[in-house]
Amino acid sequence: MDKELLPHRRRNQLTGEWVLCSPHRATRPWLGQQEEVHKEERPEHDPSCYLCPGNRRANGVDNPSYEGTYVFENDFPALLNEDPSDDASEHHLLRCANVQGTCRVICFSPRHDLTLAKMEPADICRVIQTWKEQTAELGQKYKWVQVFENKGAIMGCSNPHPHGQVWAMDAIPTLPLQEDARQREYFGNHHDRLLLNYVELEIERKERMICQNDDWAVVVPYWATWPFETLLLPRFKISRMTELTTNKAESLAVVMKELLQRYDGLFSCDFPYSMGWHGAPFNGSAGEHWQLHAHFYPPLLRSATVKKFMVGFEMMAEPQRDITPETAADRLREVKL
Amino acid sequence: MDKELLPHRRRNQLTGEWVLCSPHRATRPWLGQQEEVHKEERPEHDPSCYLCPGNRRANGVDNPSYEGTYVFENDFPALLNEDPSDDASEHHLLRCANVQGTCRVICFSPRHDLTLAKMEPADICRVIQTWKEQTAELGQKYKWVQVFENKGAIMGCSNPHPHGQVWAMDAIPTLPLQEDARQREYFGNHHDRLLLNYVELEIERKERMICQNDDWAVVVPYWATWPFETLLLPRFKISRMTELTTNKAESLAVVMKELLQRYDGLFSCDFPYSMGWHGAPFNGSAGEHWQLHAHFYPPLLRSATVKKFMVGFEMMAEPQRDITPETAADRLREVKL
Ligand SMILES: O=P(O)(O)O[C@H]1O[C@H](CO)[C@@H](O)[C@H](O)[C@H]1O
Ligand SMILES: O=P(O)(O)O[C@H]1O[C@H](CO)[C@@H](O)[C@H](O)[C@H]1O
Repeated sequence: MDKELLPHRRRNQLTGEWVLCSPHRATRPWLGQQEEVHKEERPEHDPSCYLCPGNRRANGVDNPSYEGTYVFENDFPALLNEDPSDDASEHHLLRCANVQGTCRVICFSPRHDLTLAKMEPADICRVIQTWKEQTAELGQKYKWVQVFENKGAIMGCSNPHPHGQVWAMDAIPTLPLQEDARQREYFGNHHDRLLLNYVELEIERKERMICQNDDWAVVVPYWATWPFETLLLPRFKISRMTELTTNKAESLAVVMKELLQRYDGLFSCDFPYSMGWHGAPFNGSAGEHWQLHAHFYPPLLRSATVKKFMVGFEMMAEPQRDITPETAADRLREVKL
Repeated sequence: MDKELLPHRRRNQLTGEWVLCSPHRATRPWLGQQEEVHKEERPEHDPSCYLCPGNRRANGVDNPSYEGTYVFENDFPALLNEDPSDDASEHHLLRCANVQGTCRVICFSPRHDLTLAKMEPADICRVIQTWKEQTAELGQKYKWVQVFENKGAIMGCSNPHPHGQVWAMDAIPTLPLQEDARQREYFGNHHDRLLLNYVELEIERKERMICQNDDWAVVVPYWATWPFETLLLPRFKISRMTELTTNKAESLAVVMKELLQRYDGLFSCDFPYSMGWHGAPFNGSAGEHWQLHAHFYPPLLRSATVKKFMVGFEMMAEPQRDITPETAADRLREVKL
């Protein structure tokens, strides 16, 4: 067999974990579960949508007639701003820690029928400014501010109205803590930022690049686990969302729109994904080893209805992928805009 | 708010990672995607099933008329027994490692209409013996032998014929490596096995117990991430599947059947899950810090059609659950057999 097609493992530089890559397997037929595609035309305003302007939410509150973005406290927050006072751990094998935080919903647009991919760059830019403001405000109080979007029913999103969330907590969660450690280690060894070196390398190599401008670049990372996973990287030094200038927010909106249009074009559907931002935590450290970035994790594998299942071997051992990151990048680059 | 209901984080002793637990949120309504339930009656033999005895597989091979279990090489293996000779890494940010291995399918029964839950303990015992034989054989050649089962369409399983898989590889994958480190650390500090101490503690505490006999116990672990996740633990010292005696295999079959019947009863359906075994790797170490165990990861949250989505916050930060492990254990204990 062609050496290029042999199974191998690639190391995630941000987490230190490995992913099993099996390129020769990309051709196996799919006999399993298929997802439904919802192709209804959505109205600009849906009277039954609890996120549309002017409508009433489950808790009886009316949304304002907002015009840009609109942020409110999650009606069913996973984190609360309540102090349980004493620490909860009671046995060294039953370790528990208190946590305080807050959860908010961010409506991206008053228009029920849009998605980030379909919005104008100027309107995407307003979303980015909202992310920045939320991060700045919540970063005053909490160590970790997680901005994210679940898009599509397949990603657990219960309402197609364009929206994301921000969850803030007073501890640094597991995955960002791993990224913190790896970036710190790299900075110690190379006196430079891991992801700044990485983006330069990928721009030079080209084979995993999706799109770029002077400020930003999007790649399918060498260690991607999801078939069409991407990493959105700044080409300049920036540790946190709060440092984003208006210029850089504008160029970010342009690159994000191109990525999301390529995603939608890949399987001719409203492309589902979870995306989220990682930046230096607000734990008092300057975060000079940190480079701001966004992850996009789309579940789809070979069409709008066939997803990759991260089950069995993946849940017990380590993530596995068939199509290589290089092939995935090819496919995304080929999409006609 | 009741202190018991406040959000908190629990630490997974096997991986060192945290899970965010939000008990107060267990009551939120679900407006999102619902799964289909497939409730067809299945025939004992399905002429179109590529796993039934006597039928032809995709690659033209005919299955024998097997009567107990039946093992064959996966027709689309993720791992191959081919040596790419030279090492593949080429840049310190693009780290790659060769990997060799093998992937097999294990049919649990000739009967197309059964599941492990519905099989007699004696027949489940035959499956356990097959797991043991496969682990022994592949452990001669490979460092890691991963026995697992994906059950149900929602878990990416494309054929309801009762079957599992075994993937073996010449490196220890990410998750078992974490468990190795944590168990080693515990053994160093306590001169005892982490999971042996843990099972004793849980039997004493009772609140997370599902079922047990003299040899085995099943608990919803204190740090469970999936709503109805369970951990099957031996109450005696055993590092690997290969050390299993006939007696212990028999008592294991009994406890497994009870767990799986409780699962099926919980939402009155063929309960989907991924399950798999972890034991000491075959890397030359005696593995005295290791205790054999099985993980069961079911995706369902509140009914046969509503699953837990591990998306957004979970993919970017850390796993989150609503229902507590204690409540989940209550629910499973209450199921009438
Ligand atoms: O080999 P199968 O059963 O076709 O495939 C299934 O299990 C594998 C191992 O857990 C996963 O990698 C696949 O994504 C899943 O669809
Ligand atoms: O808060 P939502 O959107 O209702 O819920 C969704 O996103 C959350 C955060 O990623 C997840 O914990 C839930 O499982 C998912 O259904």
